[in-house]
Amino acid sequence: MKIRIGIIGYGNLGRGVESAIRQNSDMELVAVFTRRSPDCISISTSTAIVATIADIENYKDKIDVMILCGGSATDLPEQTPEYAKLFNVIDSFDTHARIPEHFANVDKSAKESGKVAIISVGWDPGMFSLNRVYANAILTEGKDYTFWGKGVSQGHSDAVRRIAGVKNAKQYTIPVDEAVDAVRRGENPELTTRQKHIRECFVVLEDGADASKIEQEIKTMPNYFADYDTIVNFIDEAEFNKNHSSIPHGGMVLRSGKTGLEKQNNHLIEYKIKLDSNPEFTSCVLVAYARAAYRLNSEGASGCKTVFDIAPAYLSQMSNEQLRATML
Amino acid sequence: MKIRIGIIGYGNLGRGVESAIRQNSDMELVAVFTRRSPDCISISTSTAIVATIADIENYKDKIDVMILCGGSATDLPEQTPEYAKLFNVIDSFDTHARIPEHFANVDKSAKESGKVAIISVGWDPGMFSLNRVYANAILTEGKDYTFWGKGVSQGHSDAVRRIAGVKNAKQYTIPVDEAVDAVRRGENPELTTRQKHIRECFVVLEDGADASKIEQEIKTMPNYFADYDTIVNFIDEAEFNKNHSSIPHGGMVLRSGKTGLEKQNNHLIEYKIKLDSNPEFTSCVLVAYARAAYRLNSEGASGCKTVFDIAPAYLSQMSNEQLRATML
Repeated sequence: MKIRIGIIGYGNLGRGVESAIRQNSDMELVAVFTRRSPDCISISTSTAIVATIADIENYKDKIDVMILCGGSATDLPEQTPEYAKLFNVIDSFDTHARIPEHFANVDKSAKESGKVAIISVGWDPGMFSLNRVYANAILTEGKDYTFWGKGVSQGHSDAVRRIAGVKNAKQYTIPVDEAVDAVRRGENPELTTRQKHIRECFVVLEDGADASKIEQEIKTMPNYFADYDTIVNFIDEAEFNKNHSSIPHGGMVLRSGKTGLEKQNNHLIEYKIKLDSNPEFTSCVLVAYARAAYRLNSEGASGCKTVFDIAPAYLSQMSNEQLRATML
Repeated sequence: MKIRIGIIGYGNLGRGVESAIRQNSDMELVAVFTRRSPDCISISTSTAIVATIADIENYKDKIDVMILCGGSATDLPEQTPEYAKLFNVIDSFDTHARIPEHFANVDKSAKESGKVAIISVGWDPGMFSLNRVYANAILTEGKDYTFWGKGVSQGHSDAVRRIAGVKNAKQYTIPVDEAVDAVRRGENPELTTRQKHIRECFVVLEDGADASKIEQEIKTMPNYFADYDTIVNFIDEAEFNKNHSSIPHGGMVLRSGKTGLEKQNNHLIEYKIKLDSNPEFTSCVLVAYARAAYRLNSEGASGCKTVFDIAPAYLSQMSNEQLRATML
């Protein structure tokens, strides 16, 4: 008996989840739910169906875990509490400042329905958060650093695309090597925003657009670029499509700390990921936590959880005996 | 009310645990237990005492978690099941092949006494094991690599010291850069023992010892050195004491995997540690899991656990609300 998964939303993340399910032999995709007309969507899993979200209640007993693949701005704050009334749910809610509020809303729904909800799953929040907690619990006296990239920031790419005269654009966030090296050497540097990351843009212009004016507009854009050293490259559409159509990302979490009574000893913990596809990797994390949600609920648990509340063994297809014998 | 900790064994690890407790404001060291005469041991914590292990039963209600700092060869297989009858216990049992048997023995004791035991805590087994489980659950199709070092292998240093004519010796295990780079590039290489690690020895000879004979004896020693490229350096005692008296270690766990339906995307997860003092870092991990054992037992849990069974939140001094607000 496989774990029956549903997906809400079929963008990059939804497609990534579909793909990840195929790599987990204990799971099957039952249905993809959409607000659009189901006819407009063609999925890759022949055994699954596309359904309208209006019919979702009919799937209450046909789906074990619903994976929510919408956005954090408007979709998830409504959807996760709503669908936790019917299903075990997983989301990747990533508006850090609003997590406590989102947690409270989802927890209320999930406790009432007796379901398990795991929110803010992915890599940041998600695996990076986990590594911050582990590293802080081990090295209690120390300093944390998070670097993102090299990778595509969707938000910054969108901001550039909104400028008049820009036809298409992609923005890469890049950690500054000297900053990373100083952290690795245990120097515990105080780093400004500008010292930590570079922003590099690849921009395709509309015919007749003023390149130098647009470059200036990008570099001075408050919140997005003004506090960074920004490189702007203008390229043609062919080059854009050839070299900038994928969605790589990555980054690293470091903690540098000291121990010892007489002599002070330095230690460095580093967790680093390098991803060809940000949405596909995030999807893999979502699917592993879907397994955990299913198991926890089978044991009688309910309410909202985060990655901090889930013992690692719940993520694995292996039994506890296998894990101890082969992975410890 | 602080978590009351006891330590059994006062070698490098025991001293490391004492030092780590000082960095955790919710804990206090109550007593160090020794098989030697308590008079022979001088500890750094003025509020704690040194007691003979024969009196340990008297501390049943005075200590919340006992941290066992003996060796895996003979101490822990006896001590952990024995003292799990009286206390919540933590050990760093690291004989990978015997973990299932050790787990069963400890589980039986801890279930009977209603205590929590967490075994094989440290970095390998321990944090490296955790990272293997997380990375395998996320990237289900992929390949694992573990590299150790640069750092001191106690077992290999001991093996060199046992050779006639050797006065003192230290052995460093060093990952081979080309192997690590190939893994990081996503090439999924098949690596032999020799291709993964170099072994470098620093040896002080007794007067009149035959250096070339000893070098040969080291390089051909089965199990320890014969399968590796080994560098042997002969140095005098002054240089040995100056440059080779600390116990650094480290290493990395990598998983390289693929995702995607049409196009195959590569991903790399890397967990890396660099430690000035192996025993002090290991001690910090033991102490964090002591907190978890105490909390789990307070909630009514009992039996033997490993790092796979412990949700990360249990390791942290922070409340779940604080964790969500600041670390997610």
